[in-house]
Amino acid sequence: MPVQNGMLLVEVPLHPQLDPDSEVPLYQQLHRYFSTLIESGSLKRGERLPATRELAGLLGLNRTTISAAYELLEADGLISGHVGRGSFVAGVSVQPAGGLDWHALLNDSHVHSMQASVAGEEVISFAFSRPSEELFPIADFRTSCQEVMATHDLASVLQLGSPGGYEPLRQYLLEAGRREGVVRTGDDLVITSGCQQALDLARRVLVRPGDRVLLEEPVYPGLKNLFLEAGGELTGIPTRADGLDVAQLERSLATNRVRLIVVTSNFQNPTGTTLSRRTRETILRHTRQAGAILIENDIYGQLRYIGDPLPTLKEMDSTGDTILLRSFSKVSFPGLRIGWAIGPRSVIGHMMAAKHLSDLHSDQLSQAVLLRFAVSGRLEAHRGRMLKAGAERLKAVLAACERYLPAGARFTRPEGGMNLWVQLPEPLDAGELLARAQRKGVSYLPGKYFAVNRPEAGSLRLSFAGLTPGMIEQGVGILGEIFSSELERVRGSRNREPAPAMV
Amino acid sequence: MPVQNGMLLVEVPLHPQLDPDSEVPLYQQLHRYFSTLIESGSLKRGERLPATRELAGLLGLNRTTISAAYELLEADGLISGHVGRGSFVAGVSVQPAGGLDWHALLNDSHVHSMQASVAGEEVISFAFSRPSEELFPIADFRTSCQEVMATHDLASVLQLGSPGGYEPLRQYLLEAGRREGVVRTGDDLVITSGCQQALDLARRVLVRPGDRVLLEEPVYPGLKNLFLEAGGELTGIPTRADGLDVAQLERSLATNRVRLIVVTSNFQNPTGTTLSRRTRETILRHTRQAGAILIENDIYGQLRYIGDPLPTLKEMDSTGDTILLRSFSKVSFPGLRIGWAIGPRSVIGHMMAAKHLSDLHSDQLSQAVLLRFAVSGRLEAHRGRMLKAGAERLKAVLAACERYLPAGARFTRPEGGMNLWVQLPEPLDAGELLARAQRKGVSYLPGKYFAVNRPEAGSLRLSFAGLTPGMIEQGVGILGEIFSSELERVRGSRNREPAPAMV
Repeated sequence: MPVQNGMLLVEVPLHPQLDPDSEVPLYQQLHRYFSTLIESGSLKRGERLPATRELAGLLGLNRTTISAAYELLEADGLISGHVGRGSFVAGVSVQPAGGLDWHALLNDSHVHSMQASVAGEEVISFAFSRPSEELFPIADFRTSCQEVMATHDLASVLQLGSPGGYEPLRQYLLEAGRREGVVRTGDDLVITSGCQQALDLARRVLVRPGDRVLLEEPVYPGLKNLFLEAGGELTGIPTRADGLDVAQLERSLATNRVRLIVVTSNFQNPTGTTLSRRTRETILRHTRQAGAILIENDIYGQLRYIGDPLPTLKEMDSTGDTILLRSFSKVSFPGLRIGWAIGPRSVIGHMMAAKHLSDLHSDQLSQAVLLRFAVSGRLEAHRGRMLKAGAERLKAVLAACERYLPAGARFTRPEGGMNLWVQLPEPLDAGELLARAQRKGVSYLPGKYFAVNRPEAGSLRLSFAGLTPGMIEQGVGILGEIFSSELERVRGSRNREPAPAMV
Repeated sequence: MPVQNGMLLVEVPLHPQLDPDSEVPLYQQLHRYFSTLIESGSLKRGERLPATRELAGLLGLNRTTISAAYELLEADGLISGHVGRGSFVAGVSVQPAGGLDWHALLNDSHVHSMQASVAGEEVISFAFSRPSEELFPIADFRTSCQEVMATHDLASVLQLGSPGGYEPLRQYLLEAGRREGVVRTGDDLVITSGCQQALDLARRVLVRPGDRVLLEEPVYPGLKNLFLEAGGELTGIPTRADGLDVAQLERSLATNRVRLIVVTSNFQNPTGTTLSRRTRETILRHTRQAGAILIENDIYGQLRYIGDPLPTLKEMDSTGDTILLRSFSKVSFPGLRIGWAIGPRSVIGHMMAAKHLSDLHSDQLSQAVLLRFAVSGRLEAHRGRMLKAGAERLKAVLAACERYLPAGARFTRPEGGMNLWVQLPEPLDAGELLARAQRKGVSYLPGKYFAVNRPEAGSLRLSFAGLTPGMIEQGVGILGEIFSSELERVRGSRNREPAPAMV
């Protein structure tokens, strides 16, 4: 068996019988093919599967098809993937006599391998869009928790609750929303287990298989995969440095019957871009003309480090139909899963019913503690410190990108949030270079994870909010060195190609 | 407008154009019909809709069809229902200019009106299958919470976690499961937001539209509605005093291609019945022969008040394929939403991926607190007190049923859990009598809420675990009086019907 870079390479003849006309998508056919090879013992524990690019070339398929198949194999526990290092056969699930064929029984899960990126021993991780633990106001959290412990009606917090949420928190959020102008007559509010669940409930009540859904491109994979699971037909609307491409949005709305549009008004994940006031107006106009549903994901809105805040789409929408999603998790503690959705009463009523079926209601201990944290003013004080730290970190990442990234690299200039988007000069592949970065102790998420329709090999997300300015400078420095040297190498080798004779 | 029992009656001519051959289910057609009447102003705020039975008779439809349509209207906020008192037009959602037609856009939600039963001013509620707040070990809970507050790694509890669950709790539950024999090689465990979410995740990865799913009949509506939402074809297997009707199970498996079976091994909700060891063996044998997936819902198993515990189906299943669901919520604090599923690694892997899409992960504060509560032995001490109180309450409800229910009434004899099932003699209708009970300060859930295929007008669920023996005796006494007097009345009126002449 040949060895390359210290890895065993698979030499099994690969002849998957793939039928592009089948009802079964190609990635599922490929998944079934590899499952059989592994379960039959043709592929053995520890063997490496071909790289997605290699196999895509070999079979004449899109790389995302191969990735999707590998992700299913990973979810089955049949292979384990390490971003940048390849995918390895993890073992065979021993099937006891009379047991079920789970591969045939399990629905496709639209998983993604973002987890895999933590596998390295990197010390500077730009991979997670989450706040820094060092900034957690632990003492204030303890105080809030102790206040809940001391309340006379603690038993009601511990007793079964209501699908809409812990009522004191719900009323607090409704009142705050009214003051801000995002809750109007006819609106209601449901508390969810973070924005992720708000999106899940919304798609449960609003999306049917085959519905056309417009998302930003690139976009957070947890959002894309949710609508894929629902059977939605996804179209990515390019998001550039200055926000969503509204001309493309208009074309998509004109050529398709669109059911739902999800946009991030502030500091989008992964690009960090913010929709201008004019873009917001245009989106609302086009969406209303098309009769489409608009979801405004505003999970990062409270984290603006520079510039003036803009009104939400929800506030600007004279019809009141926009559904606004928010969360405590980015601005306070992501481990406590509390977000909320505001929208027309009938939508929220259906979302509460879906919530009831999903998990009855969100955890009430965390709802009660976060209510104390907010009511006491501790949340706002913490947010002040988060904004100060965030501004420093944003400044550090912009300066470091300016200084260390190779010429030709472009990057967004967010005014808040946690993420920044880098586009490397061609032909650099951020996915392939990740392994080298991890060996040097730095990680990030390659842009391919965020693709809806158009994977960009050269792009990557830098989540800067969880790192100190010093780590940011050091990490981007290492990345810049890797990217620059690789660029030099490939350009050098190109130059060394034999030149044709002058004739 | 005519008035009956102090209520305005609707006099709108009812001529819904229903098409039984349409792709759109009848209840949705009916929902659309009433929405239009309400939104057009033909039905006005405060007007009462016809009773489900009345309308069912009028239109020649099943009552469950009417109920389902009313539930959708309720979810829209167009009507508000009060069990036993009827459904009233709540108002029109004012549609701003250019706004969306939400009724056309929203998917059908498989809601149920169990919430409605809390509307009365009853003081003795048999309506909730939940523990008594008075039994909550508040001091022990506070101590557990303070221990979590004092840990040096509190920040890791508050930081973003993993879809599988808070790892220290997950390892604790895996180890406990191994000792008990319910976790074997090849199994894994995912922490969920209660058993309800475990069921939701299981159906996301295992059920496709059109799949045949066998459930117990009667069954907890949150379970039935979940599989309806997934597009499952549901068959109810009758559950009698001695557990599931295995002959019927065998017939259903023989005549249908069944994908999934969900059974409750101990103290089923709503009947309170437990599967005998022989029934468990038979279920396993039939399920395996049919190649169906088996989910064992064991949410009440830790609450056995009398008799000896039986091994779980999961433990008895030599193939290891059974998926076992458990939860902290019934034995400790329902407001903290922590349950878990144990099953083959590939299934649990897919459920973790679905969990990631649903809400990233369950709340970590509650997971950490419940871990302390369990590890410290406080959970087991509390369970001891729950068992003692439960035994007294069970004894009280059985004695009261014996003493006060009218002759001809039958009821189950649970050995644990929280619920008992009563079947009243004909022609009593537990749904219709509920309003009278509520006026006397007592409530329960009518059997119709628990029907899969065969609604039983005469049955009802008594959830006894949340009430003291004294309240149980008083409450069942009041119910017995109402049921007996109604029985006397209808039998008396029958006897007064003119007898045919003897010839």
